[in-house]
Formats: sequence, structure tokens, C-alpha cells
Amino acid sequence: MEPSFRFEVVAECPHTRARAGLLHTPHGTIETPVFMPVGTQGTVKGVTQQMLREELGARIILGNTYHLYLRPGHETIAGLGGLHGFMNWGGAILTDSGGFQVFSLSSLRKITADGVVFRSHLDGSEHAFTPESTVDIQRALGSDIMMVLDECTEYPVSHEHALASMNRTLDWARRGMAHWRLNASVGPPSGSALFPIVQGSMFPDLRKACARALLECDAPGYAIGGLSVGEPRPLSLEMVEATEDILPRDKPRYVMGVGMLDELGEYTARGVDMMDCVLPTRNARNGYLFTQRGRLIIRHKAWAADPRPIEEDCACPACRQYSRAYLRHLFLAGEMLYSTLATIHNLWVYLDRMRAIRQAILDGDLPGYLALLRSMKETED
Amino acid sequence: MEPSFRFEVVAECPHTRARAGLLHTPHGTIETPVFMPVGTQGTVKGVTQQMLREELGARIILGNTYHLYLRPGHETIAGLGGLHGFMNWGGAILTDSGGFQVFSLSSLRKITADGVVFRSHLDGSEHAFTPESTVDIQRALGSDIMMVLDECTEYPVSHEHALASMNRTLDWARRGMAHWRLNASVGPPSGSALFPIVQGSMFPDLRKACARALLECDAPGYAIGGLSVGEPRPLSLEMVEATEDILPRDKPRYVMGVGMLDELGEYTARGVDMMDCVLPTRNARNGYLFTQRGRLIIRHKAWAADPRPIEEDCACPACRQYSRAYLRHLFLAGEMLYSTLATIHNLWVYLDRMRAIRQAILDGDLPGYLALLRSMKETED
Repeated sequence: MEPSFRFEVVAECPHTRARAGLLHTPHGTIETPVFMPVGTQGTVKGVTQQMLREELGARIILGNTYHLYLRPGHETIAGLGGLHGFMNWGGAILTDSGGFQVFSLSSLRKITADGVVFRSHLDGSEHAFTPESTVDIQRALGSDIMMVLDECTEYPVSHEHALASMNRTLDWARRGMAHWRLNASVGPPSGSALFPIVQGSMFPDLRKACARALLECDAPGYAIGGLSVGEPRPLSLEMVEATEDILPRDKPRYVMGVGMLDELGEYTARGVDMMDCVLPTRNARNGYLFTQRGRLIIRHKAWAADPRPIEEDCACPACRQYSRAYLRHLFLAGEMLYSTLATIHNLWVYLDRMRAIRQAILDGDLPGYLALLRSMKETED
Repeated sequence: MEPSFRFEVVAECPHTRARAGLLHTPHGTIETPVFMPVGTQGTVKGVTQQMLREELGARIILGNTYHLYLRPGHETIAGLGGLHGFMNWGGAILTDSGGFQVFSLSSLRKITADGVVFRSHLDGSEHAFTPESTVDIQRALGSDIMMVLDECTEYPVSHEHALASMNRTLDWARRGMAHWRLNASVGPPSGSALFPIVQGSMFPDLRKACARALLECDAPGYAIGGLSVGEPRPLSLEMVEATEDILPRDKPRYVMGVGMLDELGEYTARGVDMMDCVLPTRNARNGYLFTQRGRLIIRHKAWAADPRPIEEDCACPACRQYSRAYLRHLFLAGEMLYSTLATIHNLWVYLDRMRAIRQAILDGDLPGYLALLRSMKETED
């Protein structure tokens, strides 16, 4: 039998809310805090699964339920060994519920008593997600960590609207959790986890009420959603602070869709264990490289004959082997290898930052490390 | 000092003109016959240099002088350790002269007494190549095997036109070789080679005259150009046959820009040692996969849930790890990983085919192996 999902706190920061932990999943144990690369359609754009695992040391990645449900379809994936077998990924997989994409990508979405009806962004065909069906879909995908269906509100939104939306998300969370528990009791134990999601827009009272109400779910972990939707950064951090001490300290907390490189430490210091974001991969492809000192824009003419790597003290496979001049050339020539090398670098920087943050927690000096990071920062471009 | 270019015939086929050899270059020894993956702009599209070397076993690749001269520029590349250093490729590199691209890509090309004037396909800027300058450019790139500037005629063309063009190519070859020898005597010995190119369109008499005239160059190797320009396949093979026994048997022969998978054995049997073509890489990206049994079109619906690899007995890294269903999904979703896996497979098939052909020569049964290949062939699509 596969080992079941379990979270273990290994060390607590004496100065902040941060902690170092171990996330045990049916597909391996993951050191937290962790940044999870995003593999929307069954692949992390720009890199191979082997690079992810062997060169970057990633142990958990994200898949998007909305995308995989529409193409190639969760039943097809289930028939090919689940998402792990389909994409030949031996590490852990977290899937979102599809809610975010229904609200951001699809057209003609309509909320019903049962769930949400929407049209595919691919071919306009009509589909419905319910709190129950998204659990079933994620189970078919075989993900280790699943999310309940939630409603993502735009920003800004009125308190009244946010309250109604939060109540819907709460109702869906209860239904999703009940369905998951029922199913788990009749089907074979998969050892996977389902996380409900804290919503409430940018209203601390709603965030707190939502977090408190979700406690009754006694879930294996909790997600905080609806951030990074256009609000100023201090507000996002404030929303996490508003709920973090309500959520059980012995369960993992996952802030969805964040963040910029410098935010990883900020969220960690606020008690967050898991994060994901398309920024390192998407920015890489668009020519923006993250470094300890700030952002490097690869197309700049200054790098045309520069033999230095992206970052001189970076140990990533791209920096160990290739110059800025070569990367710039590949970028301007539209060559795929640029995206691969840039993605490797950006993901390395993110994953390496998380490893350093974890070490600082274990060493008991996270604030010192975060201060050092701030002092290093300058903008190279 | 780097070892100098040298060709060594290891075994001769008792039934055909084929031979197995060793091509010693400043960047390693290459077993022939060999297929050389094309890295037009300093990268073989779809794969990393590490995959090329470690997973595919490639020991020599092509670079395109025209493209690299225009972007990022041969002087930039020279300043970054030559093309080997620039792209971090430890194996051998063959560069063409740029002539083919001048005649196929650039606009407003004009042949002068001195060489050829053309406009860049990138920005319309005016440039000139002379037989001497293309040697200098390739030397700056640091290639192990360089080509003389040649004129590529369209197909079909009149005998009169082909004769005039062939004479120009001959004149350029003499000038290029003289410049290379002069330079080699004053500069540091680089150990690299320069090949003149047999032209003459589809006229056997012109091909023979060209080959005979080129003998005076006493070159380290000979290329046969101007094939695969739209002529029927039997004609290309006939043009090779017309010249092969004129070219010195102790020198390597390189047929430029060929071919389809099944042609590799045909050219080898006609005494050819080196081939290159964009087909395996370009077809891969466009969804066409080569197999021992024929072509597989990845977008076909029949593969939507097919757990089999592209080819069941293929040992390539893509076939060892991924299903047709996964590859089809990646292709339809426009994911980069599709191109990478498809390129790995197609290049593997080409390089593996060449390894098998070489082994058949060593075993003394090339005709038997070629007959076996023909019997295996069917079209899967």
C-alpha cells in the first residue's frame, strides 16, 4: 500500500511564524517550505521531467485540472496510469480544482445551485464542474494533493459580493470534503489529500470567518486562494496574516499562485509551507531571468558579447555551461534551447531559494537570511 | 597541439562502394558513415547539447555559416571561444560555406567577379561573401570541417547555365583552397579541413568534369552539393554514382543536405561517408516521426489513448519513457516537450540507422541489411 499523506513539522522559527517540515505523500516526501513548478498541461514548459527531477531537484509539481479535463481528458489519463504514469513523473503532484481557470479562461460561465457551468476555451463546448465532480476528476488524475472547487472573485469587489462568494466556496468545500471522505471509505485508500481553500477577497473579516468555518472540515491541509489577482503586495501578505493563526499549526498551508522571488521568504515567514507560480517559467520564456541581485533582461545589447553566465555564483546547469551572449543569441533567434536554459535557471533560483530559506529556519536565523537577501538586491537592468 | 584532420578507411564493403571509416578531427574521432544533425543557429532545434552527446551519441553536428555570420556574427563567436565554446559543444563541427542560404534565403543576390553580394533575410542589410571571406568566417567560427563557397543552381536548369555555374564554383573552389592553404601556412595550425564541392546540376558530364577538375585541389575531403533540390530521387543517386569513382577513395565524401531515412543506406552503398539533413529534426517538430516501418503521424486520433511508445522496439529515451498518447497530447497542446521528445526519437532513428549500416559494412553484409530494411517497411499511417 502507498504511504498516506502526512505533514510533519521538523523545526519552528523562533522569530517568525515560519517552520520547516516534511510533506509525506504517496509519491515521496517533500521538504517544506516548498516551491512547486507549474505543469499546466502535463508538462512544465521548457524542461523535461528528467531535468526537473535530476538537475533541479523538484519533488512536487502542479497540474491543472481544468486543462487536463478538457484535453486530453481525465479518463484518458486515468487509463494511462494517471497523471504520474501519463507524464512519467515519479514525484508528487498537486492539482488545483479547475475553479481558477473556469473563472479566468472560459466563457459564459454560470454559477448554479449545483456548481458551475462553463464553455471550453478550446472549442466552446459546454461543461459543468461540481464540488463532487472536481474531486472525482482529480482522483482520476491520481494527484497526491487535490483542491476543492472554489469561486475566485475578481479584484476589487464589494464586501457584499465577497461574502456571498465566500459562502458559496464554503458550501462547495463542505460538499467536496464530504464526497472525498465518502469515496475514500468505499474505494481503495489512495493516501491522497484534499485541501479546502480560504477565500474572502481582501476583507480580513471574511478571510477570518472563512478560515474558522473551514476548521470543521478537519482537512489534511489548507489552501489560501484568491491572492495575486491584482492587489498590492502588502494586501496579499495581510490576508495571509489574517488567517494563518486560525489555521491549524500542524497542517500544511498552501498559498496558491504566488509569487515573485522575493515574496517566497515573506510568505514563509508568515507560516506558509507551499507555494506555486508560473512566474519563473513564464518569465524565463519571455526573456526575464531572476537573480539574487534582481532581474536580468536577456535581450539587452549589453550582453551581446558577455562571456559571463546569467549569474556568476549560480550553480544551475545553465549558468555552469552557457554565457549571457549565447542565451541572448538564442533568444533573439527564437530558438527553443533559450527557453529550456532560461527555465532551468529561473526554476533553479526559486528552488534553491527555498532550500536556503529552509536551512535558515533550521539554523534559527530566518530574519538574518531575509535581511541579507534584501541587502543583495539591486536591479541589473 | 590539436590533432589534425585525417580520414582512415577501416573496412570496405565487398559488394558495394560502401566503406566504414574513422574521421579524426581536432574535436574527436567520428565513425563513418555518419549522419550529422543540423544546428543551424548554434543549436540543434529541440535538444540540448548534453542530449545530443550523451543520449543520442552524436559526435559531429552542422553549423550554418550564413546564419551565424549574420547573427550573432562570426567575430562575436570568435571572441567567445569559437562556435565550440559559444555553444559549449565538445564534439566536432562542420560548417557549410553559406552559399546555399545566400541562394535560397537572401534577396537581391548578385554574382560579381569577386563573389556574391546579397541582402540579409533578417534586416535587408547588404553583405558580400567571397571564396576567401567564407573561409575566414568559418575559421573564426573554429569549425573542424569547412566548405568552399559554391553556387547552387535551381532545378531544373539548362546545360549551358549549369556549365557556367559549375565553372564559377570551380574557380571559387580554387581560390578558397588557395586562401586556406596560404592562411594555414602563416597562422597557427588548426588541424581543420576544407572541402571543395562538386556541382553540375543533373548533368553527369558536368558532374564528372567538376569532380575531375577538383582533384587538382588535393583536398582533405570532397563534398557533393546541389542535390535534394527537387529532383527525383533516382537522379540524385545517379549524380553521386557519376562522380564517386572519380573522387579519391582515401578521402571522405560528403553528400550535402540528404536525406530521407531510407536514403542513408543508398548513399552509403554508393561510397558516401557523411550526410546531413534537417528532415529528422524539422519533421519531428511538424508531427512526423520516423520508424523502421515507415512514418508515424503523431496527431492521428488512433493514438489518443495508445500506451505504446512511438516504436515498440526502439531504445531511444523518448520511446523508453513516453507513450504515443502523451506525445499526441503534447503536440496538440503545442507544448515544447513534444518537439524535444520527437526530435530525440527522430535523431536517434537516424543515428542508430547509421550505426547499424556501419556494423553491416564491418560484417560484410550491407546488401543483406538493406534488403531487410526494405522488407520491414510499411506505412503505419
